[in-house]
Amino acid sequence: MANKNIPYKINLEESDIPQAWYNVRADMKTQHRPILHPGTLQPVVPDDLRPVFCDELVAQELDDKNRFIEIPQPVRNFYKMYRPAPLVRAYFLEKELDTPAKIYYKYEGGNTSGSHKLNSSIAQAYYAKEQGLKGVTTETGAGQWGTALSMACGYFGLDCRVYMVKVSAEQKPYRKAVMETYGATVTASPSDTTNIGKKILSENPDTTGSLGCAISEAVEAAVSTEGYRYVLGSVLNQVLIHQSVVGLEAKAAMEKYGEYPDIVIGCAGGGSNLGGLMAPFMGDRLAGKASPYFIAVEPASCPSLTRGRFAYDFCDTGKVTPLAKMYTLGSSFIPASNHAGGLRYHGMSPILSQLYHDGYLDEARAVGQLSVFDAAKTFARVEGLLPAPESAHAIRAAIDEALKCKESGEAKTILFGLTGTGYFDLSAYMQYNDGTMEDYVPTDEDLQRGFDGLPDLPGVE
Amino acid sequence: MANKNIPYKINLEESDIPQAWYNVRADMKTQHRPILHPGTLQPVVPDDLRPVFCDELVAQELDDKNRFIEIPQPVRNFYKMYRPAPLVRAYFLEKELDTPAKIYYKYEGGNTSGSHKLNSSIAQAYYAKEQGLKGVTTETGAGQWGTALSMACGYFGLDCRVYMVKVSAEQKPYRKAVMETYGATVTASPSDTTNIGKKILSENPDTTGSLGCAISEAVEAAVSTEGYRYVLGSVLNQVLIHQSVVGLEAKAAMEKYGEYPDIVIGCAGGGSNLGGLMAPFMGDRLAGKASPYFIAVEPASCPSLTRGRFAYDFCDTGKVTPLAKMYTLGSSFIPASNHAGGLRYHGMSPILSQLYHDGYLDEARAVGQLSVFDAAKTFARVEGLLPAPESAHAIRAAIDEALKCKESGEAKTILFGLTGTGYFDLSAYMQYNDGTMEDYVPTDEDLQRGFDGLPDLPGVE
Repeated sequence: MANKNIPYKINLEESDIPQAWYNVRADMKTQHRPILHPGTLQPVVPDDLRPVFCDELVAQELDDKNRFIEIPQPVRNFYKMYRPAPLVRAYFLEKELDTPAKIYYKYEGGNTSGSHKLNSSIAQAYYAKEQGLKGVTTETGAGQWGTALSMACGYFGLDCRVYMVKVSAEQKPYRKAVMETYGATVTASPSDTTNIGKKILSENPDTTGSLGCAISEAVEAAVSTEGYRYVLGSVLNQVLIHQSVVGLEAKAAMEKYGEYPDIVIGCAGGGSNLGGLMAPFMGDRLAGKASPYFIAVEPASCPSLTRGRFAYDFCDTGKVTPLAKMYTLGSSFIPASNHAGGLRYHGMSPILSQLYHDGYLDEARAVGQLSVFDAAKTFARVEGLLPAPESAHAIRAAIDEALKCKESGEAKTILFGLTGTGYFDLSAYMQYNDGTMEDYVPTDEDLQRGFDGLPDLPGVE
Repeated sequence: MANKNIPYKINLEESDIPQAWYNVRADMKTQHRPILHPGTLQPVVPDDLRPVFCDELVAQELDDKNRFIEIPQPVRNFYKMYRPAPLVRAYFLEKELDTPAKIYYKYEGGNTSGSHKLNSSIAQAYYAKEQGLKGVTTETGAGQWGTALSMACGYFGLDCRVYMVKVSAEQKPYRKAVMETYGATVTASPSDTTNIGKKILSENPDTTGSLGCAISEAVEAAVSTEGYRYVLGSVLNQVLIHQSVVGLEAKAAMEKYGEYPDIVIGCAGGGSNLGGLMAPFMGDRLAGKASPYFIAVEPASCPSLTRGRFAYDFCDTGKVTPLAKMYTLGSSFIPASNHAGGLRYHGMSPILSQLYHDGYLDEARAVGQLSVFDAAKTFARVEGLLPAPESAHAIRAAIDEALKCKESGEAKTILFGLTGTGYFDLSAYMQYNDGTMEDYVPTDEDLQRGFDGLPDLPGVE
């Protein structure tokens, strides 16, 4: 069955781990609109951000000039423990679908944190340590980011305080256990440990929480604690820079066998995965060297790209963060509790939003969770990997594209990101197995309520 | 920090996946005493075993002549999805311990089943399918074997019925969920679905179960159901043959860098991991080519090698299986519920038992679970991998050996097996984290009760 020339797993050598991250902004034709200070509504300058983020990360956040950013040696050393991550040729899935398409996936779930998030958390923890900080605060949705940050902080000896979206904390007690094993403190959000948490609870005592709300609490905790900064696992430019390691490795592994993707697919919540996976391929596209077709896959329950507005909005529910121009459902939109907690965010990375707006990110596609779990089970059975629900959004789209190839007879080369393991999502699989899982799609009225909460910014475009 | 010549992860090529398993029995100076039919007390012949095991597995079980057994191509294809498994140079652990020792571990927890068990389950499922069977039955302790078998059966389209030790089923609901996701049926053991289960429950209604008891139920279910056979994940010779793939790859990866272990360490419950890891190195030793020092690490709560008897015993609690000459605590011994469910078995592989009796397996070492979890947490923090409690027994011993090297200044090369991930053992980590975990060591009286249940076999040595 196997093409004799391409192995199932393409493992690069340790020496193939990139020396530098790639910053796609250096090649973008149009930069996203500047981040605005929430008080002055003026573009932020570094001094505005330094109380919140580490100095080096502030520089990366605002950098639209440097194409490559050197990966510090201690971060590269840590990467060696779990990178290069394998690029897998999905021969078994191709056979199952009887498709002429060639399907590849970059598997980022093989490390103990269980996802690609570790690529950025170790970098952020490193810069915090280098700056002499005591610790960091953050939020986590599905728990992937919190786990990754806990590992990174445990490794560098930093204190780690995690605000975990309440519904995820309840669904995933073992995620909390991993974080605590790595020495982190985990608080279900909204909580009464912050002013903004108390406010949100008083207004909506039954809320199951959201990423936007947990971000508010984590930011408040960071800026009100000496020696702490806030770190974030998605959305930000700095995160997309770090996650470019995924795409750089995927590209190098494909090049080793003379392959190049016709289609690049990633799930998209805040954009960390897709932004990282597609970065070097987008660079090729922006430079006119190649024209792969990019697909962002999001949950139908939280459709920021497919049904959101391209507008300035707060990054958090509590409206304490700067404002970003992005596709958004409104920072007050609280999505239904579905089983892809990592994709339950009201906004989308400003970089991805701009690329989508400008037509470089070709397509956004919203999929329902029943069809996602159907794809996940097929994949688990034939490819021997139980995917995280987030990742299974990309699997769904990859299968659908491969089936289109079957119809058309085209042997397209499909690359998708398999961002994480499903080990921590077994309660979701249990619901799917016993038939109690449901699809949820917000009504136009639901969305309108979110849009009604968008900030009114006269004179700002 | 890193030795420039040896990478952190040594990944072999797909073409380096062994073509054949290695059967250490072909090189053993003394064979273990024959397996006896429980009725006649005569050595079993193939016809005795065929109602229980697939025909090909019966042949492998009794094979003490063929040094190499070809791995069927469909099994090699499946292996390609997750093999070769990495051999990791534990640079970070070495640094943490400040030891001159070189520490390597073969990591078998990177596949979705989470452990090395998949190496044998896929082989056993393949032979069952080839024979035209409808399905298989088995038992599982920690759930690793059951998960691995579920994946294998899902892949080949076989029905899979798993009897899961009750205490594990209660501690690990998500293990059940994974098995069901792969289409298996899971029953907590002892259960009222078998005669032997009913008998055990009536005699000891509060039992938390044991592997020996679950084996009895699974065997009964297999022999009483048309088109079914029983499969087992450890203890048996056939399993050690399949698991030799672990050692063969480890040896090849080390040879690539001119390395050879001075010490080989494996956790040992039924013997599948240690038997597989050490197989080719033991072959070298038996052939006089090398003399690595072998250490089996077992839980102090279930010390079959260190405190058991070398005697004929049943492989199950219900006394329905054939008898094997092995180190045993007595098939009626039910170990305290600790958190290394995969090591809670009263006996030990007849091959390992014989090698230990003859002095080729140099040392057996019993360790308490508090010291095991202490090692596990250190390892998780510095090496970025959360180990299964079973595997952490080997980590404990590897750390202790490396610390001895620090004392003596010797730069020994240590190889240990990291058999599985700790993702499914987070309730155990929670207990350890909050200080409620306890050590348990059976008293001599506890052990005597087990020995009192050993079969009385006049004239049998």
